[in-house]
Amino acid sequence: MAPFKVAVYLYPGADILDFSGPIEIYSVRAREGPSPFKVITFAHHDPVQSEAGALVYKPNEKFEDVAAHIEDFDILVIPGADFGTISAFIESKEGKDLNALLRKFVSSQPRTETGHRMLQSVCTGSILLAASGILANRTITTHHLGLDMLQKVADTAAGGQSNVKVVRQRWVDAGATEAGVRIVNAGGVSSGMDTTLWVIEQVAGKPTADWAAEIAEFERRDAGWGVSK
Amino acid sequence: MAPFKVAVYLYPGADILDFSGPIEIYSVRAREGPSPFKVITFAHHDPVQSEAGALVYKPNEKFEDVAAHIEDFDILVIPGADFGTISAFIESKEGKDLNALLRKFVSSQPRTETGHRMLQSVCTGSILLAASGILANRTITTHHLGLDMLQKVADTAAGGQSNVKVVRQRWVDAGATEAGVRIVNAGGVSSGMDTTLWVIEQVAGKPTADWAAEIAEFERRDAGWGVSK
Repeated sequence: MAPFKVAVYLYPGADILDFSGPIEIYSVRAREGPSPFKVITFAHHDPVQSEAGALVYKPNEKFEDVAAHIEDFDILVIPGADFGTISAFIESKEGKDLNALLRKFVSSQPRTETGHRMLQSVCTGSILLAASGILANRTITTHHLGLDMLQKVADTAAGGQSNVKVVRQRWVDAGATEAGVRIVNAGGVSSGMDTTLWVIEQVAGKPTADWAAEIAEFERRDAGWGVSK
Repeated sequence: MAPFKVAVYLYPGADILDFSGPIEIYSVRAREGPSPFKVITFAHHDPVQSEAGALVYKPNEKFEDVAAHIEDFDILVIPGADFGTISAFIESKEGKDLNALLRKFVSSQPRTETGHRMLQSVCTGSILLAASGILANRTITTHHLGLDMLQKVADTAAGGQSNVKVVRQRWVDAGATEAGVRIVNAGGVSSGMDTTLWVIEQVAGKPTADWAAEIAEFERRDAGWGVSK
């Protein structure tokens, strides 16, 4: 099996665990042999500072370089941040760039070599997806404190009613685009790991996902976890 | 309350989630006001490359600078790595430096301002603690695949029987040193988050810990989780 190529977008103030959790899980080696996933990070900035400042990152690639061949990636991960950071980001040039990138990614049919293409948001990263207009008419989620904001941003992008159904779940399979690209929203922060394990199960099988969870000593939860809270 | 100062040691190949999980949790802001924790990273290397290479870090401070005033920090976090990386690290100059730092840290009485000092290992990070000899006569743990190695390294450091009791738990309170520094070992990878929440509960109270867990949408587990598996 050709390795799945995963691109993770980093930006200043992005929540550490929103992207570190998925990268940890995607980086796990198979029980025998190398990891079925090859992960890179990309960003507009270099270095990229986390909100609290303790972790400072040097991305592997520049935004424009990855954007020029985004169709070579099978999985694109968009992390969230606090609400102020998200609001400012949406209005920025980087935000407009990301909107265009997201629209291009979900319009690109899966690579023949892998047969899958997934857009995966974590936490308030789904609000960035909503800003690009690609979530209209879908069932979607985000951090439990951001559900109203998600609805508002989706409606604004639609110029009225976006017809989204905002739910509180551990993650949501928001369905495939016309090009066959599946959109998945994780709930808050640590749910990005559950979502990643689910994505791995879809594209690489349950044994690989279960092994990744065992190595991380991470207890998998189903999509309904936390719904009734 | 004066903020607790947290230092996190980074090294090439250190497991991403082993340190990103605790930093995420320690960085959370209080329900009202700033975070009660101030976190910095330090390393022998700059930048520091994660094993898979997708995440590359610029540490806040140099090893020798932090080592020169380690007694100013209330909490020291030591992440793990895969077994090969750990073995090589123990034999390296960096490994010897860390041994000396750990012995100094656990011999320094808690700061008067905070009243607590904690040494927290995550995953195979406890094997690095064992190599410094400070775990002798304690009940200790590590990643579930590393329990034998932990015993061996503890015995080697003791020059014979270390009299450790190696258990499989989500985390272990390995007890306090003569100076009053508490040593805590997390189990594998994601258990670093449970352990951090427990440490927060000890030093800053349960409401702060519960709030951090809620923001991360992280389900807390007790120390016994996974023991019977």
